[in-house]
Amino acid sequence: MNTIELMPSIRRALARRDFTALNDILDDAPAADIAERFAREPDDISTLFLKGIALKHCAEIFSYLPADKQLRIAQELSDDELARLFTEMDGDDSADVFNMFEPVRRESILRRMAHKEREDMLRLSSYEEGTAGSIMTSEYVSINERLTVSEALNKVRQTAPDAETIYQVYMLDDQQRLTGTMSLRQLILADPLARLDSVMISDVVSASSDMPQEDVARMISHYDFLAIPIVNHDNKLVGIVTYDDAMDVVEKETTDDFHRAGSVGVLEQGLSSTSLFTLYRKRIVWLVLLVFGSLFSGAGIAHFQGLIEAQAALVIFLPLLIGSGGNAGSQAATLMVRGLGTGEVNIRDWTSLLGRELLISCVLGITMAVAISPISYARGNFDVACAVAISMVAIVMVGSLLGMSLPFLLNRFGLDPATASGPLVSTLCDSCGVLVFFSVASMFISAATGTPHVSCG
Amino acid sequence: MNTIELMPSIRRALARRDFTALNDILDDAPAADIAERFAREPDDISTLFLKGIALKHCAEIFSYLPADKQLRIAQELSDDELARLFTEMDGDDSADVFNMFEPVRRESILRRMAHKEREDMLRLSSYEEGTAGSIMTSEYVSINERLTVSEALNKVRQTAPDAETIYQVYMLDDQQRLTGTMSLRQLILADPLARLDSVMISDVVSASSDMPQEDVARMISHYDFLAIPIVNHDNKLVGIVTYDDAMDVVEKETTDDFHRAGSVGVLEQGLSSTSLFTLYRKRIVWLVLLVFGSLFSGAGIAHFQGLIEAQAALVIFLPLLIGSGGNAGSQAATLMVRGLGTGEVNIRDWTSLLGRELLISCVLGITMAVAISPISYARGNFDVACAVAISMVAIVMVGSLLGMSLPFLLNRFGLDPATASGPLVSTLCDSCGVLVFFSVASMFISAATGTPHVSCG
Repeated sequence: MNTIELMPSIRRALARRDFTALNDILDDAPAADIAERFAREPDDISTLFLKGIALKHCAEIFSYLPADKQLRIAQELSDDELARLFTEMDGDDSADVFNMFEPVRRESILRRMAHKEREDMLRLSSYEEGTAGSIMTSEYVSINERLTVSEALNKVRQTAPDAETIYQVYMLDDQQRLTGTMSLRQLILADPLARLDSVMISDVVSASSDMPQEDVARMISHYDFLAIPIVNHDNKLVGIVTYDDAMDVVEKETTDDFHRAGSVGVLEQGLSSTSLFTLYRKRIVWLVLLVFGSLFSGAGIAHFQGLIEAQAALVIFLPLLIGSGGNAGSQAATLMVRGLGTGEVNIRDWTSLLGRELLISCVLGITMAVAISPISYARGNFDVACAVAISMVAIVMVGSLLGMSLPFLLNRFGLDPATASGPLVSTLCDSCGVLVFFSVASMFISAATGTPHVSCG
Repeated sequence: MNTIELMPSIRRALARRDFTALNDILDDAPAADIAERFAREPDDISTLFLKGIALKHCAEIFSYLPADKQLRIAQELSDDELARLFTEMDGDDSADVFNMFEPVRRESILRRMAHKEREDMLRLSSYEEGTAGSIMTSEYVSINERLTVSEALNKVRQTAPDAETIYQVYMLDDQQRLTGTMSLRQLILADPLARLDSVMISDVVSASSDMPQEDVARMISHYDFLAIPIVNHDNKLVGIVTYDDAMDVVEKETTDDFHRAGSVGVLEQGLSSTSLFTLYRKRIVWLVLLVFGSLFSGAGIAHFQGLIEAQAALVIFLPLLIGSGGNAGSQAATLMVRGLGTGEVNIRDWTSLLGRELLISCVLGITMAVAISPISYARGNFDVACAVAISMVAIVMVGSLLGMSLPFLLNRFGLDPATASGPLVSTLCDSCGVLVFFSVASMFISAATGTPHVSCG
């Protein structure tokens, strides 16, 4: 929180090119805050700063910068500098930057890295974006299960400077297969002479490297894990995903779901750093699609043109009725989208939830019909009030069932359920609402005296 | 993941009342999974199970149960049993359950707890719901700053069985004020003979006990902390909040925001465990409010009744125009609500974001006007096409500016910005849309030949 006060001294030291003073300041300052400040500094200042400070600080701060800033700064660094930087950074972070480069540059950087780091980089960068493999790190502590607890503690001490976490340790058999796990706390409390395989937790919860990253993040949150081991199809340990990366994944996925639910396309970066043109592009696609969706409502209205000409006052109730269907539908869709998003609701629950929704939406519709009846009676007459009330119940039920079913349908066809956004549900409900209302109204109006009295204004 | 396979053997052991076998099974099984299973079992079975197994397992599994289930099981336990259970549980979890009891029972349980635990419970349960104090734990490792690294490691070893985390250690001066912090990793790597105050990180990031819990969670995520120290106004250390509790807070807050954005009230429990009546109550309030909001649109339409009777075909374009305003407004509101929710957008950014929105919404409106013009020209004539196009630009701009400003306005008045839901924005946009469209249309229609030709159907 004191980084705001630190910035002037950082700027002064940078102006003097006094990197010793800078490193002293950075020893105590949180890298996340420094990165947040420098994300807004001009690129040449940031590059000068990162080139001058100690590699350990540079790697940490660089990891926290936004992707586009990382790429621009990387253009100013030599391949040698990048090879050193990538070696110092956590494997999962460096692989993300590495993957943004052209093949030629990747090749050149790899040639400058030591054998082990090169292998790690090649392996980590080969996993598909969005999978557990793409966010895992290979800097974990693994120990042969036949060693003793005290030997394991020694290994932890040796690995401490490099591993991403030393607080969860994994046991392997001679074929490098994952057979157990222990937390550092359990190791400290265990008998130092005991063999690991006699004290370790052998029922290890692990994930496969091709599992979607949001599922892995959900597992970490469910089990309150510090890290989850990632295995390949032979149950060989290939990496770990840590809780902090899981938190980032959850935040990004939630933002994407939120935006989808508002009919905005998925933004790669934060709102403030997204260009105006990108924002325009992410919004216009859905808006135009929905405009054409609205044409169905227009066609419905055109079909009832005669009725509207005879009974223009009916139009007064149109926004209210189609709006209510859209609102009830948005509510139902929101509940389902979030339920599916947190894993609390499963696609198998659809039928039981449908039953609940049928009941709730019916009672919701009746309540709203009762609420609006005095007004529609005052504005029109008994027939108009009946037509509005019956339409209200029908439209709210149709909207609710549509809103709750759409996320499941989308999921069934492999699409993201959050695409069942409020605006999409509202637009669909509009068309249904127009048809329902004017159909019901035409029954009542023709059944009644022909031209019932409707007062307006 | 193997808990599904474990459940039959758990059930068999429970039927035989073989608690030794049960404890053996639980030694290796993740408590989160066991709790998830027993949350769905009848209360008497769950109580029998929890009463029989070892206290350590009972405390862990009980902590993972949903609040309503915890309360029902607690009714079946004696005050002695609860006092033992609360002593074994993490302080933040037990305080949550404790706070659900009547004052008389709280008193009786406290009398049965040891002095230190009683003090902790009283202190933790006194913090207001929703603050950092209400989710913090007092089971942390703190050490006087004048001790050495090796003495600190000894203290960590002694505290390991009880502390919620031993991986972050806090240094205090003689007045119990927080002066520094070190991770266990840093302790392991430091010179064992060094005094702590010479090697510790002395620029500690901490939070105050009355800070809102979502802000604390955001700090933990921002700094990738394992835990954050909580201090009182004298900078005395009173507790820590750990990353796993932060993840839970983020998930709950996000769900609340999601539901608000869909105009559903905040649900205390998950969707499946919420009763039908509660769901009805959480939805009907907004639906009825919005129905009455829609009456403004109705009044607007009533005002233009004459125009509608003369030009019924204009109604064809009504759902399309008011829908587009609502959609653009929902998009803008979604972007702002999520931006404010993640802390990426600040209330001070309002004016600069308003400028961007003005520009984007203008271009969005023009694009949509162009897209719809051929259709409105074909359906109507040049005047109708002009009226629709001009209305479209105006309505999309009004909707967007309304949608983006509303979250800021709500925030300004101390309300949750997520209350600026899609349905609320749509309903507000509907009224504006009706007024704009018919005003523009009446200018064009009276300016034109009087009764221009509009073909329908």
